[in-house]
Amino acid sequence: MKELLYGVAYYTEYMPYERLDKDIQMMKDAGINLVRIAESTWSTHEPQNGVFEFSHVDRVLDAMHRAGIKVIVGTPTYAIPTWMVKEHPDVLAETAKGPGRYGARQIMDITNPTYLFYAERIIRKLIGHVKDHPAIIGYQVDNETKHYHTAGANVQFMFVKYMKAKFESIESLNQASGLDYWSNRINSWEDFPSVVGTINGSLGSEFARFQRRLVTDFLAWQASIVNEYKRPEQFVTHNFDFEWRGHSFGVQPDVDHFEASASLDIAGVDIYHPSQDNLTGIEISFGGDVTRSLKGTNYFVLETQAQAFPDWTPYPGQLRLLAFSHLASGANMVSYWQWHSIHNSFETYWKGLLSHDFESNPVYEEAKTIGIDFNRLSPHLINLRKSNRVAMLVSNEALTALSWFPLPGGKIKYNDIVRLMYDEVFKMNIGCDIVSPASDTFENYDLLLVPALYAASDQLLERLNAYVRNGGHIVYTFKSGFTDEHVKVRTTLQPGVISEACGIRYNMFAEPKSVSLNGDPFGVGAENNQVETWMELLTSTTAEVLASYDHPHWGAYAAITKNCFGQGTATYIGCLPSAAVMSKIIEAAAKEAGLWGADQEIRHPLIMKSGVNELGRTVRYYFNYSDHTETLKYPHGEGIELLSGQVVKQGQTLELSRWGFAIIEETS
Amino acid sequence: MKELLYGVAYYTEYMPYERLDKDIQMMKDAGINLVRIAESTWSTHEPQNGVFEFSHVDRVLDAMHRAGIKVIVGTPTYAIPTWMVKEHPDVLAETAKGPGRYGARQIMDITNPTYLFYAERIIRKLIGHVKDHPAIIGYQVDNETKHYHTAGANVQFMFVKYMKAKFESIESLNQASGLDYWSNRINSWEDFPSVVGTINGSLGSEFARFQRRLVTDFLAWQASIVNEYKRPEQFVTHNFDFEWRGHSFGVQPDVDHFEASASLDIAGVDIYHPSQDNLTGIEISFGGDVTRSLKGTNYFVLETQAQAFPDWTPYPGQLRLLAFSHLASGANMVSYWQWHSIHNSFETYWKGLLSHDFESNPVYEEAKTIGIDFNRLSPHLINLRKSNRVAMLVSNEALTALSWFPLPGGKIKYNDIVRLMYDEVFKMNIGCDIVSPASDTFENYDLLLVPALYAASDQLLERLNAYVRNGGHIVYTFKSGFTDEHVKVRTTLQPGVISEACGIRYNMFAEPKSVSLNGDPFGVGAENNQVETWMELLTSTTAEVLASYDHPHWGAYAAITKNCFGQGTATYIGCLPSAAVMSKIIEAAAKEAGLWGADQEIRHPLIMKSGVNELGRTVRYYFNYSDHTETLKYPHGEGIELLSGQVVKQGQTLELSRWGFAIIEETS
Amino acid sequence: MKELLYGVAYYTEYMPYERLDKDIQMMKDAGINLVRIAESTWSTHEPQNGVFEFSHVDRVLDAMHRAGIKVIVGTPTYAIPTWMVKEHPDVLAETAKGPGRYGARQIMDITNPTYLFYAERIIRKLIGHVKDHPAIIGYQVDNETKHYHTAGANVQFMFVKYMKAKFESIESLNQASGLDYWSNRINSWEDFPSVVGTINGSLGSEFARFQRRLVTDFLAWQASIVNEYKRPEQFVTHNFDFEWRGHSFGVQPDVDHFEASASLDIAGVDIYHPSQDNLTGIEISFGGDVTRSLKGTNYFVLETQAQAFPDWTPYPGQLRLLAFSHLASGANMVSYWQWHSIHNSFETYWKGLLSHDFESNPVYEEAKTIGIDFNRLSPHLINLRKSNRVAMLVSNEALTALSWFPLPGGKIKYNDIVRLMYDEVFKMNIGCDIVSPASDTFENYDLLLVPALYAASDQLLERLNAYVRNGGHIVYTFKSGFTDEHVKVRTTLQPGVISEACGIRYNMFAEPKSVSLNGDPFGVGAENNQVETWMELLTSTTAEVLASYDHPHWGAYAAITKNCFGQGTATYIGCLPSAAVMSKIIEAAAKEAGLWGADQEIRHPLIMKSGVNELGRTVRYYFNYSDHTETLKYPHGEGIELLSGQVVKQGQTLELSRWGFAIIEETS
Repeated sequence: MKELLYGVAYYTEYMPYERLDKDIQMMKDAGINLVRIAESTWSTHEPQNGVFEFSHVDRVLDAMHRAGIKVIVGTPTYAIPTWMVKEHPDVLAETAKGPGRYGARQIMDITNPTYLFYAERIIRKLIGHVKDHPAIIGYQVDNETKHYHTAGANVQFMFVKYMKAKFESIESLNQASGLDYWSNRINSWEDFPSVVGTINGSLGSEFARFQRRLVTDFLAWQASIVNEYKRPEQFVTHNFDFEWRGHSFGVQPDVDHFEASASLDIAGVDIYHPSQDNLTGIEISFGGDVTRSLKGTNYFVLETQAQAFPDWTPYPGQLRLLAFSHLASGANMVSYWQWHSIHNSFETYWKGLLSHDFESNPVYEEAKTIGIDFNRLSPHLINLRKSNRVAMLVSNEALTALSWFPLPGGKIKYNDIVRLMYDEVFKMNIGCDIVSPASDTFENYDLLLVPALYAASDQLLERLNAYVRNGGHIVYTFKSGFTDEHVKVRTTLQPGVISEACGIRYNMFAEPKSVSLNGDPFGVGAENNQVETWMELLTSTTAEVLASYDHPHWGAYAAITKNCFGQGTATYIGCLPSAAVMSKIIEAAAKEAGLWGADQEIRHPLIMKSGVNELGRTVRYYFNYSDHTETLKYPHGEGIELLSGQVVKQGQTLELSRWGFAIIEETS
Repeated sequence: MKELLYGVAYYTEYMPYERLDKDIQMMKDAGINLVRIAESTWSTHEPQNGVFEFSHVDRVLDAMHRAGIKVIVGTPTYAIPTWMVKEHPDVLAETAKGPGRYGARQIMDITNPTYLFYAERIIRKLIGHVKDHPAIIGYQVDNETKHYHTAGANVQFMFVKYMKAKFESIESLNQASGLDYWSNRINSWEDFPSVVGTINGSLGSEFARFQRRLVTDFLAWQASIVNEYKRPEQFVTHNFDFEWRGHSFGVQPDVDHFEASASLDIAGVDIYHPSQDNLTGIEISFGGDVTRSLKGTNYFVLETQAQAFPDWTPYPGQLRLLAFSHLASGANMVSYWQWHSIHNSFETYWKGLLSHDFESNPVYEEAKTIGIDFNRLSPHLINLRKSNRVAMLVSNEALTALSWFPLPGGKIKYNDIVRLMYDEVFKMNIGCDIVSPASDTFENYDLLLVPALYAASDQLLERLNAYVRNGGHIVYTFKSGFTDEHVKVRTTLQPGVISEACGIRYNMFAEPKSVSLNGDPFGVGAENNQVETWMELLTSTTAEVLASYDHPHWGAYAAITKNCFGQGTATYIGCLPSAAVMSKIIEAAAKEAGLWGADQEIRHPLIMKSGVNELGRTVRYYFNYSDHTETLKYPHGEGIELLSGQVVKQGQTLELSRWGFAIIEETS
Repeated sequence: MKELLYGVAYYTEYMPYERLDKDIQMMKDAGINLVRIAESTWSTHEPQNGVFEFSHVDRVLDAMHRAGIKVIVGTPTYAIPTWMVKEHPDVLAETAKGPGRYGARQIMDITNPTYLFYAERIIRKLIGHVKDHPAIIGYQVDNETKHYHTAGANVQFMFVKYMKAKFESIESLNQASGLDYWSNRINSWEDFPSVVGTINGSLGSEFARFQRRLVTDFLAWQASIVNEYKRPEQFVTHNFDFEWRGHSFGVQPDVDHFEASASLDIAGVDIYHPSQDNLTGIEISFGGDVTRSLKGTNYFVLETQAQAFPDWTPYPGQLRLLAFSHLASGANMVSYWQWHSIHNSFETYWKGLLSHDFESNPVYEEAKTIGIDFNRLSPHLINLRKSNRVAMLVSNEALTALSWFPLPGGKIKYNDIVRLMYDEVFKMNIGCDIVSPASDTFENYDLLLVPALYAASDQLLERLNAYVRNGGHIVYTFKSGFTDEHVKVRTTLQPGVISEACGIRYNMFAEPKSVSLNGDPFGVGAENNQVETWMELLTSTTAEVLASYDHPHWGAYAAITKNCFGQGTATYIGCLPSAAVMSKIIEAAAKEAGLWGADQEIRHPLIMKSGVNELGRTVRYYFNYSDHTETLKYPHGEGIELLSGQVVKQGQTLELSRWGFAIIEETS
C-alpha cells in the first residue's frame, strides 16, 4: 500500500433516491478515499437467470474514479437471488435443523453444483466486465464466508470419501474415533450414517474440520477465478469475521482463518466491538492481531462500525480513537460498514456513518477529522511493521472438541479461555501475534500462551516440549493436551505428552465449589482468588508449585505450577483462575522471558501499541480507553507527537483526554 | 338492548351427567338471563361428514326459553371435528413451524376451500335449524378468530396476487420494500419466494397485514351467511380477544379489530385479567374502551372470568366489582366463561362459576347478588353513553413493524408503550376512547395519545399535524413517525413529517445506560427519573424542552419537548420514561387541553367511570380497587346511590369498603 | 445370592489397547468379583447383517472365569448398529418431534418388527453362544429400557386397537375422556386421530400408559427368549432407572417399574446421585426402597458412580460410604459404571473407577478397601431382610396426569411431592417401602404416605378408606383423589371418595401469594411456615384442623387436617408446605401409628438403616452423611461393630468420622 485507506461500504442499489454526486461530495469532505461495492446485490447484477446488468456498477466506478476514490469490487455470491431459489430450491443448505428456506443471506450449500455454476458465471461476468476499470484497486471474494452448517446427503457423501482418504481403513477410523461406543461402529463404508445426529465427538469434530475445509476450498476456488482477471497491481482479499457474541469475540469456529487466507493476497476482516463506556480496545487489538498474523503483514479492516447499534453510538472522540487503534495494530485500511443507514429490510437499526437522513451528524463530522489526519500522516503511519516476541497458539480443533466436551456449566467455552489470556496480555501492553498449530514459526517467539489446547497431536505437543527445552517459555491452561488430534482422550497420565515439559501429572479433576487458591499466592485479594468451573488435581513431579487449592480434602494438590525444562520454562494453570491471577501468571512468564519494560508498567485503560514505519522510525501510539483524562510519563527516546507536531521528550508527562490518544514517532 | 344481560357460556355437550333442569334452576337463582351455546362443539353437531344432529341444541333452547333465559348461538367453526382432518389433513394450517397437527382448536387454514365448504354447510345447517327459535336473541360468528399463522403455499399464492394488486409494478414493490438488500430483489412476479423465511421487515409486515385481512374477510363471510337467516331483531356479534400475556393485555396483533368489526352488529369481546391483589381494573377498562370504540357504542363482554386460574380465584367482593366495572365502561352484557368447571381435556384448571362439583360456592353466591342488582338497576345502568374527549391512537401496523424492528433488549414491545400511556390516563380517571389510523373522527377529540406510531403514512402524519394546528393536543412517544406505511425508514430528519408540529429534529439515538432526566424536571424522585431502553437525541427547533438527559456526553440533547403549533400543542417523549413521568406528562397535556376536574384529583385505587343513562342522567361509578377501605369527597351534584338508594350530596364523604363501589345517579 | 457382589461394567470393545490381563489383576486387587458385559455393543457382536462375531466375548468370559470373577451378560439391544439403520431407516422411533436420526442409543421404535426380528436374532445368537459358560451367573435384558416416545403411525394404529379393547364402545371413550371438548369427539374408530398433537389430558395420559405397556411387553418378550437358554441357577435381571434431573431423582415416568419387573427374576437398577458436599444418602435410599419393593426382596445396583462427573468426584471416604449405603437398603450387589473412563465418543467426562490413564488413583485405592470388606463381611451383610411398617404409594398414572395438568408455575411436579415426603421419612430414620396402586399388600403397613394421588379409580380410593377404617394411618397431600382413572375431575365435592376418611370437603383452591399457616402451628419459624404453589380451601366436616391459612380473606379455611375414621386416622395436607412442616406432620402420623423409637431421635446427617441378616441377627448401619465428625448414643442391645470387630454396648457413644459409618450386628 502507498497510502492509508479510509473507506466505506457503498451500495448504490440500496439508495432510496438518486444522490451519487452528493454522496461523493460528502465522502470527499470526509477524506474517504475508498469504497467497497457490489458484494451483496447479485439480484441487481443478474435480475433474471442469465440476464446481466452492470450499468449501476459502471456508473459508480466512473464517478468514484473521477473523484479519485478507489474501489474494491466484491463478488456478490454470499446472497442469492430469488429466481435461483425458485428454479433450484436445492441450492439452499440442508442443515441439522432441516432444509433451508429463502430469506437471509448465507443460506446456500456452498458445495451445490447449481449454485457453483451460477456463482462462477456471475463472478466471470461481473469481474470480466469491470476488470479494466482504473478505479479498482482490488477484489473481495465473497463475504464472511462460512459453511452455513451445510450437511445434506451430498455433503455426507463427500464426507465419507474424505474419511476414506484420511483413515484408509475402516478399522483405523473405528479405533481412532472409538465408534464401538454405544454400537456406533461402522463395519463397512456403505454403512456410514449421516453424522447429523452423531453423538460421537471424534466424528463430529472431524465433520466440523471437513466443513471448515469446504470454506477454504470455496474461497480458493473464487480467488482462482478472480485471479484470471485481476491486474498485477490489484489484490484479492476476503472479509473474515470472528465468533459473534453480540460483537466480534474470538476465534471463528466455522473457518480456519490460517488455512483459508492462503489463497488471498491481503487478509481482510471485520471487527465490531462494544462502544460507549464499554469501549476497551481489546476486540480491535485481538481482531487485528489475528488478521495481521494470517499473512504476517498489514491487513485491511474492511468493515467496522460507525454508529451501528443504539448502544454503540459513539461518544465524541471514540470514532477517532477506534480508527487509529486499527492502524496501531497494523491495519492499512479502516472502512465503515456502511456509508449510510439502511431504510428497509433487516438492518435498519445498524446505523452507518450517515444516519437515515443523509445529513451531516456529529459522527460524520468526527470522521472528517480522521480523513484529514489519515491523509496527512499516511507516510508515517502506513505499513507499520511489528515484531512481537509473544504469540498465542489458537486451534480450531481445540475449539470444536471443547464444544463437544464442554466444561461444567456450559458457560465457559474455548474463546472465553482465549480471551482470558489475551485480554491480560493486551492490558499489560505486550504485543502479541496469533499462531495456529500449522504454524512453522512459533519457535521464533520468546513466550507462547496456550489456552486449552484440548485436542492436539503428539507431534504438536512434542514440538512444544522441544520449544521449551530450547529456551522457550509457555503458559498452558487446564485441559491442554487432554486428547489427541482425533479427540481421543490420551491413555497416559495427563496432561499427556506435555507432562514432561510441565513436570506434573494428574488423573483426577473436579468442578470447584467455593474453592480458592491456598494463601492467596498471587496477592489478588479474596474476590479474585476464587477458582471457578474447573480444577485439575495436579501432582508435581519436577515442577514448582505456584498455587495449591484451599480445599478440605484436596489441599495437597497443586493448582498452578511452573517447571524449568531445558533452557525454558513451562507454566501450567490447572484451573480457571480470575483475570487478576491470569494477569499475574502472564506477568511472571513475561518477566522470565525478558519481556518486561517501561510500557508494561503502564496499564489499561492506557494502551501502547508500536511498530516501525516506512521511514524506519519507531512509532508508538498511546491510547486512553476511558472516560476521564489520564496521564503517563513518556518512557522512550525523544520524538514528535504526530497529531500536534510537538516534540516529546523522555520522561515528559503526556496528558490524554478522555478517549484521546497520542502518536509519537521516535526521532532520537 | 332493553335489559342488562348477565350470562354464562353453557355447553350441554360437556356435561358429565344429565343436569339441565338443575343448572337452569341455579342460573335462575343467580339472575342469569343469557346463555351462549354451541360454538365449540362441531363434532357433536355433525358427528360424521354430512350427518347432522341438533337435538341437544333444541333441547337447551327449549328449556332456556321456558325459563326465560335468552340464548346466543355460536357458529361452531373454530374447532374442527376429527373426521374432517382424517379425510382432509390439508385443512390444517401450515405455518412457519411446519404442517399443523390435530388436537387444539384454532389450527385450521381459514382460507382452505375444504374447510370453508364444511364450515358454510354446518353454519347453514345449524342456523337454518334454529333460526325460528324464540329464545335466540343473536348469533356469534366463530370465536376469537385469528389467522393462526397460516402461511402455506396456497396462502403465499394469494399473497402474491395481493401484492400485485397493491403495488401494480414489481419495481414499486422492490423500491417500497428495499428488496435490493441482501439480494432479496424480486425481478419477476414468478420469482416471488415464500415469505415464511423472509428477513425483510417491509415484506413481513405486509404479510402480517394480509393475514389480518384474511380474518376480516373470514368474519365478514360468516356474518353474511348468518345474516341470511337472522331475524330483524337479532344481532350478529363476535368474541374478539387481545394480546395475551397470561391475561388480556393489549392490542391484538393478529386481527385488525376496527376493520373486522365492520361486518358485525354489536362488538363482543373477552376480557381476562389478574385478580386477587392484582385486580386493578385496568384490563377491564382498556378492553372495554377498545371494544366500545369499535362500533362507537355499547358492547358485550361475551367472556370473562368467574374463578378461572388458581391465582385468580376472586376475593369476596371482587366478582361484584368486576361485573359493575364492565358496565361502567359501557358493556351491556357480562357473561362468564363458563357456567361450570370442565372435567376433562385441557382447561380443567380454568374454573367456572360453579366448581367441578356443581354445588353452590362463595363465588356463585356472590353472583346471585349481581344478578339481582343487574335486574333491579337495569333501567339506570343499561346503554350508558360516554362522550370522551381523549383518545389513544393505536395501530396494528405500528405494532407489527415494531416487532420486526424491536427496541434494544427485546422486552419492551408496542403494547408495553400502549399500556404505559393507557394505564396512566386510566389512573387519573380520564375517560378515553381508542382510535385507529383509519378513524375519520379523531379530530373530534381534545387530546390524542399516540404511542410509538412507528409505521405511518405521510397522509396520516400530515393529518395529525393539521389536528394540532387546528387546536388539538397530542402526546407522542419516541419512534413515532420513524417509518412510512411500507416500514421504510424516512429519509428526512426524524421524526419525519411530525417534526413540524413537534418542533424538533434528531438523527441519532442510543440505548441509555444509567441515564436520567437532568434535574428531575417532573419531581418524581431518583428512582422514577431513570430513562430506560431508548433515548433519541432530540434538538429543539421551536419546541420547549421539558427534559434533557443527564449524560456526560449527550447532556445538550432534549429528551422530552412540548411545542405550540397553530392552535394546539404537541408533546414528544423521546425516551422510555417511568410511569410516574408519563403520568406527569399526560397530566400536563390534559390540563393544557382543559380536561382537568375534580375527578382527576381522585386517583387509583379509586376509579371513577361515568356516562349518561337512558333517563338522560349522569351516572358515576366510584370503584375501590384495593384491599382496604378508601374514602373520597363526592365532588358532583346531588344524586342517588343506586345500590343503597341513599341520597348523596356534593362534598359528602363516601366510604368504599375494600373491593367496594358506589353508583351515583346525579339528580340535581 | 451366596455372596455380596462387587462389580464393574466392563467393555473390552472400548479398550484403546490390549490390557485384559492387567485389568483383571487390578480387579482382583480391588476385590471385584463381578463384571457386566456385552450390552452396549451390538455393532461389534454383529458387524454386518447376519455376520456374528463373539470371540471378544468368549475371551473375556474365559479370562474372568479363570480369575474367579462372575459375569452378567447383557442383551445388546438398546443401541443399534449402523448397518441396520442404513438398511431400514424406519427402525428409528418417530416421535412428536419428528422422525428419528441415527447417533445416540435408545432411539429405536421398540415395536418395529424389523428391529424386533434383528433383536431376537442377536439375543438368540449371543445367549445361545454363551449359555454354557460357567462364568455366567445371569443375564440382563436390554438396558434402561423406555419407550423413547415412539409415536409413529404404526404405534397410533396399535393404540386405537388398545383403546377399542379397553373402552369397547366409542361412546364410553368419548364420555370418559370428555372428547366433546373443543370438538375432539371421535364418532367413529376410523376417525381416531394421531394423539401426538392432542390437547386432551385423558387421551394423552392413556397414551402414556399404553407407551409404558410397550416397555413392559418388550422386557417380558426379551426375558422369555433368554429364559429359553438360561440355566436353573441363573437369573434374568434388568437395569431400571429413575426420573433424571442431573441425577436419579424420582419415579420413572416412562416405565411402570412394578408391572415391568414381573418378568424378571431379580430387580436391578442404576442409582446416580450428587456427591461431594451434596451427598445426602437420599437417592441411594429412595432408589433402593423402590427397587427392593419391586420383588419384595434384595436387589442389584447394576450401575452406580465411581468418579463420574467432575462435580461428583468423591471425597475420601465417600466411595465406601455409598457402597455400604446400598447394602443397608438391601442391595446384594454394588457395581460401578464403569471400570475405566471412556476415551472417545460422548461420555468421556463420566469417569469410571479408573481414570483414562488406567493407573491406580485414590478412588480405586478406596475401592480396594470396599472389596476386602465386602468379601470379609459378606455372610453378615448379604440378603438383609427388612420389614418396614411404612409405605409410600406412588403412581405412574398420577405422575402423568399431573404433568398434563401442572401446578401453577410449572416448577413443582409429581416427583417433587414424592420427594418432599420421602426425604423427611428418610431423615427421621423410618424404613419405608414403596407400593403402587396395583399392590395387593399395602394393607399390611401401619402408615401410608400418599403424595398427590391426582388420578385414581374409585376402587382404589375406597380401598384406602377401608384401610383407614380398619386401623391404618394415611398422610395425603393436596390434589389426591381429584380425578378418576381416566383423568376426569370428579363431579363430587373434593377430595372425592377420600373425603369420607379425611373428614373434609372443598371446592375452591388458589395459588398462595405470601400465605403462611396461621399461628405457626408446627413451631417451625416464619421462614418454614410459608405455603407455596397451591392451597385448597378446606372445610372440615369431621376432621381436626391442624392448620389454617393466615390470609386476609380465606383465614376461615383449613390447610391441614387430621381425621379419626374407624380405627385409623387420615391426615390431609391441602397445600404445599415446607419440608419442616412436612417433617412435623409425618412425625405426628408416625407417632400415631406407633412407629417412634430411639432411632427416630437421631436425625440426618446421621442415618440408621437396619435389617435382619442370614444369621437371624439384626444389623444396623449408622451413617454420617456430613463433612464433620458426628456422635450418637447407641440405643440398642449390645452388638459387634463389624468393621472394627469391637463390642458396642447400649448407651455407648459412637463417633463417626466425616463420611464415616459403623455396622453393628446385635448380639444380645
